[in-house]
Amino acid sequence: TCPSTAPSPPPPDPEVPVSTPIILDCDPGHDDAMAILLAVGDPRVELKAVTTSAGNQTVEKTAMNARRMCSLARAFDVPVAAGYPKPLTGTLLIGDDVHGETGLDGWEFPEPEVPLQSAHAVDLIHDLLVDSPEPITLVVTGPQTNIAGLFARHPDDRARIKEIVCMGGATHRGNTTPYAEYNILVDPEAAHEVLASGVPITYCGLNVTHQAPVTSEVMQRILDVGTHISKVSASLLGFRSSTYDQIWDLPDAPLHDPVAIARVLDPTLVDCVEAPVSIELRGEFTRGATVVDLYGVTGRTPNAKVATHLDTERFWDVFMKALTALG
Amino acid sequence: TCPSTAPSPPPPDPEVPVSTPIILDCDPGHDDAMAILLAVGDPRVELKAVTTSAGNQTVEKTAMNARRMCSLARAFDVPVAAGYPKPLTGTLLIGDDVHGETGLDGWEFPEPEVPLQSAHAVDLIHDLLVDSPEPITLVVTGPQTNIAGLFARHPDDRARIKEIVCMGGATHRGNTTPYAEYNILVDPEAAHEVLASGVPITYCGLNVTHQAPVTSEVMQRILDVGTHISKVSASLLGFRSSTYDQIWDLPDAPLHDPVAIARVLDPTLVDCVEAPVSIELRGEFTRGATVVDLYGVTGRTPNAKVATHLDTERFWDVFMKALTALG
Amino acid sequence: TCPSTAPSPPPPDPEVPVSTPIILDCDPGHDDAMAILLAVGDPRVELKAVTTSAGNQTVEKTAMNARRMCSLARAFDVPVAAGYPKPLTGTLLIGDDVHGETGLDGWEFPEPEVPLQSAHAVDLIHDLLVDSPEPITLVVTGPQTNIAGLFARHPDDRARIKEIVCMGGATHRGNTTPYAEYNILVDPEAAHEVLASGVPITYCGLNVTHQAPVTSEVMQRILDVGTHISKVSASLLGFRSSTYDQIWDLPDAPLHDPVAIARVLDPTLVDCVEAPVSIELRGEFTRGATVVDLYGVTGRTPNAKVATHLDTERFWDVFMKALTALG
Amino acid sequence: TCPSTAPSPPPPDPEVPVSTPIILDCDPGHDDAMAILLAVGDPRVELKAVTTSAGNQTVEKTAMNARRMCSLARAFDVPVAAGYPKPLTGTLLIGDDVHGETGLDGWEFPEPEVPLQSAHAVDLIHDLLVDSPEPITLVVTGPQTNIAGLFARHPDDRARIKEIVCMGGATHRGNTTPYAEYNILVDPEAAHEVLASGVPITYCGLNVTHQAPVTSEVMQRILDVGTHISKVSASLLGFRSSTYDQIWDLPDAPLHDPVAIARVLDPTLVDCVEAPVSIELRGEFTRGATVVDLYGVTGRTPNAKVATHLDTERFWDVFMKALTALG
Ligand SMILES: [Ca+2]
Ligand SMILES: [Ca+2]
Ligand SMILES: [Ca+2]
Ligand SMILES: [Ca+2]
Repeated sequence: TCPSTAPSPPPPDPEVPVSTPIILDCDPGHDDAMAILLAVGDPRVELKAVTTSAGNQTVEKTAMNARRMCSLARAFDVPVAAGYPKPLTGTLLIGDDVHGETGLDGWEFPEPEVPLQSAHAVDLIHDLLVDSPEPITLVVTGPQTNIAGLFARHPDDRARIKEIVCMGGATHRGNTTPYAEYNILVDPEAAHEVLASGVPITYCGLNVTHQAPVTSEVMQRILDVGTHISKVSASLLGFRSSTYDQIWDLPDAPLHDPVAIARVLDPTLVDCVEAPVSIELRGEFTRGATVVDLYGVTGRTPNAKVATHLDTERFWDVFMKALTALG
Repeated sequence: TCPSTAPSPPPPDPEVPVSTPIILDCDPGHDDAMAILLAVGDPRVELKAVTTSAGNQTVEKTAMNARRMCSLARAFDVPVAAGYPKPLTGTLLIGDDVHGETGLDGWEFPEPEVPLQSAHAVDLIHDLLVDSPEPITLVVTGPQTNIAGLFARHPDDRARIKEIVCMGGATHRGNTTPYAEYNILVDPEAAHEVLASGVPITYCGLNVTHQAPVTSEVMQRILDVGTHISKVSASLLGFRSSTYDQIWDLPDAPLHDPVAIARVLDPTLVDCVEAPVSIELRGEFTRGATVVDLYGVTGRTPNAKVATHLDTERFWDVFMKALTALG
Repeated sequence: TCPSTAPSPPPPDPEVPVSTPIILDCDPGHDDAMAILLAVGDPRVELKAVTTSAGNQTVEKTAMNARRMCSLARAFDVPVAAGYPKPLTGTLLIGDDVHGETGLDGWEFPEPEVPLQSAHAVDLIHDLLVDSPEPITLVVTGPQTNIAGLFARHPDDRARIKEIVCMGGATHRGNTTPYAEYNILVDPEAAHEVLASGVPITYCGLNVTHQAPVTSEVMQRILDVGTHISKVSASLLGFRSSTYDQIWDLPDAPLHDPVAIARVLDPTLVDCVEAPVSIELRGEFTRGATVVDLYGVTGRTPNAKVATHLDTERFWDVFMKALTALG
Repeated sequence: TCPSTAPSPPPPDPEVPVSTPIILDCDPGHDDAMAILLAVGDPRVELKAVTTSAGNQTVEKTAMNARRMCSLARAFDVPVAAGYPKPLTGTLLIGDDVHGETGLDGWEFPEPEVPLQSAHAVDLIHDLLVDSPEPITLVVTGPQTNIAGLFARHPDDRARIKEIVCMGGATHRGNTTPYAEYNILVDPEAAHEVLASGVPITYCGLNVTHQAPVTSEVMQRILDVGTHISKVSASLLGFRSSTYDQIWDLPDAPLHDPVAIARVLDPTLVDCVEAPVSIELRGEFTRGATVVDLYGVTGRTPNAKVATHLDTERFWDVFMKALTALG
């Protein structure tokens, strides 16, 4: 056989949209719930699995909530697995002030039809990576404990990941302490290990997710979709806005986690810069800060992409379209 | 004598402006230079002394620059003294990338007529405080080494100070490292000691001083004053804008230090909130950050006023009026 | 039924020695190698498995060395498995200055007969714990990464462990930095997690292992055993003494790791006190120190047993007896 | 004139003992009190001044105690001045558990005849240094706040100091926390600044001062001197032994501070090695530790002398001789 005359692979059919395979590691949580809906509803990503971390609530509760949302979205074939029950070091700081007792307060869910996999999150991700013909994108919208655990157990899996796109950190102020964002603060050592792994990583931090506030107008658009799913979504987001308003005087609570999905769906929705990022592990008042050197004052080499701008209008259009597509 | 019939003190005569006695501890530096002009030119403060810290340049150079600016402003009676040559701990980080070799590059000054006091800055401040019939306001626009040294040597002087208004810190990002502002970063232990002293303190940080960019329009207004002093000022600010542009892509360099003077001149120019502030002494990447808990998430008790908003238009009016008054 | 007349359980038969089931997690390493021999040769412990950590050498090499020593001791039924390739955070600091290129320089070993288990160390330990009718003692003579990983993955396994006896730390000075002992310094976060797990833990630190120097007399006694195993042992210890002498001017290198086995074999060999222990994670010069509050000056509650004295004479008797028993 | 025929300076007359001029900066404190007696009573040092720091008690009390001891020793010409009331950062940790309410409990002193100088300790030291025809040795037996303050205020004075000999630190364990010795722990930043000053420094740490326990035999020798001063000394040391016994189960309390004087009197009494020393400023459990790299494992350059051995027998002989000489 002569290579020079071998038939070329057919060009991608522009009518058939390219779908990026992703695994979503999350801690639902209300905005993680919306990220699941977006990932299921938009054809430009193929949701291979949902794994859950300990974060907004215990890992048992976040796994239950992932199963609830996949069931709601009729994503019955998406495997859901639970990961580590606590951060690499120290004890878990849950986010029940925002997300309530269940981690997804604001709607009374039925028993989910999607089952819990018996496999640990790390094993499920590992098996999917090994079995996949192409590298997979990890979207991480909770503390990064599971991903650090994956790299510790299976260092070779780093080469099987196309990139990591996370909701995490901030270029300016944090939300849980003055300079630390919740996902990073819960497990700073994990975030450090993921950043140091060498896998390409993009941070969608508070500076960009705050460009997606759930305004009254957005709420109205969600309700206008007119489906059961849109009704549940509006109810969940309504609950969350009430807690945001109490804690931060912020009635139009920003929709953090779907922004990371959006960046994968269509990178033009979220502008990024390359910058040196460090995770502060030591500070007395600043532990968990993602220290982003936007102006190159530290002399460090850029090691991450950092989101700086969201195309808010198109983001909401994409979100509403996915919600509508879920039926 | 019957108290109830005792004569009341006469009401303040609205025609006679109240003048607040201040001591300016600074590290000129271009914006400190403008702060000196504002303090001399505006009748609402009475400049009792200028003391200098090691900061933008060595303490010898900052003292020389203070003498130059007082001479330029014909403030021949204002005593100028130099303070500590280095921070409480560690070595001095000068700011010659912004302020040049002399600390005040951009104008060729004659030998200053205002002499250097032989007294150490701490002794000059102490003597003025002890001799003053009323508490004095300290305006600090450089590293806070001298003030920490004053409190170490003369703890009782804390009661002789009405308040400290400083240019320092930031509620969001820093300028010298991602989270640390230059004045605080140079001597974090001093800033911590000053904050812990119990003397009322107001931080005019980068978040508010960046509301005073020296735009082309502002430059034009300065030139339009049409005096020798305005010409020198424009030349100095022109030099500084060129360095800001190189480092931070910021051609309209903000005029930090005069904002602290403005807050004393007329508190309504600078809005403040009370908040818990901590100085990060330990972080690997965040040392020197002023950690401002704007939303009360840390549970700490407010211990400082933090400036949040500048009335930019009135600020420039006040500045131009003072420049004009200097003749 | 009347409890008072219920038959008592038969008293333990003094002829049948009680054998404590142990799993040895180690990083051979010369002294780990001697710990394996002691554990195989003394009937008072039953060696259920040897798992290896990344430490003195890479985890691949420490696993190879564990297989070599089990093969040498004809412990063909003891499963050997490898664990994590690096500490929880940061990169691995190997100890090749002491242990050489192979981690066990000083003898040319044949291909080991004992195979490497395909299971990860954590899974092997977990399975053994779950299958055991009684709690098992963990002896840890390397960095504690695998044990921290076990507790992260299987928190319930903590209740299946009788106690942890480790070689680690020091009450006075360290060996790798002035205050940190090697095993703890390599993975301070793991040591912290193990200490915080609530499982009873005993530290056999440098202060007590330095009471077991391998003197010329000890070397002679080893050689006098007159077996192949004693010849290999003497050769290995000879190599190690040469490196100790170079680094610390200490020709009679202490035999650290077997002391932890000795404490399990016969607790009267190693005196301990209860004390508050903290692992320093933050210090600039002291990271990895085991901070032992021997005099209760910190006000903390004792959370560990800390070995303070070795019965050196009986220790060597026990060691020689085990070596002899190996044949 | 021909240099080769110039007359040599006369050789020192062996009959006339060389007397080293010293300034003692201390925080009496019982062992500081004995250091004062030793410095006054031994002709090989010339005590130019006693300055006091905040340490074992407030600076007012330590100054009072210095005056008491100088009065007792009839050192009426030795000026006594008080220094800073608190450490460079943070609040003062006094040692009243050891030294009692007065800082010198155990004897009822009369009003001291030696007056308190009105000058601040830093100014007194500065004036003495400037006026001295030769460099002076500083003996520091308390927290090093005053010396750090001297160097901050008068950097040039560093060249006027022959060397600093301090009681401070430890090569092994501390006394106030597991790894920190009291004098260093009270003001770690000051100790760091003094160490970084470049002035030659010798640490007489706990490892060597614990070689001077005040045994019953030592107490008897003190009493046998048979003077009023010896009676006061025995009473003071008796009080201190009772507190040591309560805190550390150490009835023969070591006589720390005079060891630093002894090193100056006769360097052969105290053996030293050159080693890299770092002051831990950051640790969570180890702040204030003097990290001494005895074996060169850190690769740092030696920056201090560290005492390792005391000639205990000769030390007590010297002490008794001085006590006797005081009459
Ligand atoms: Ca989330
Ligand atoms: Ca300034
Ligand atoms: Ca080992
Ligand atoms: Ca003392």
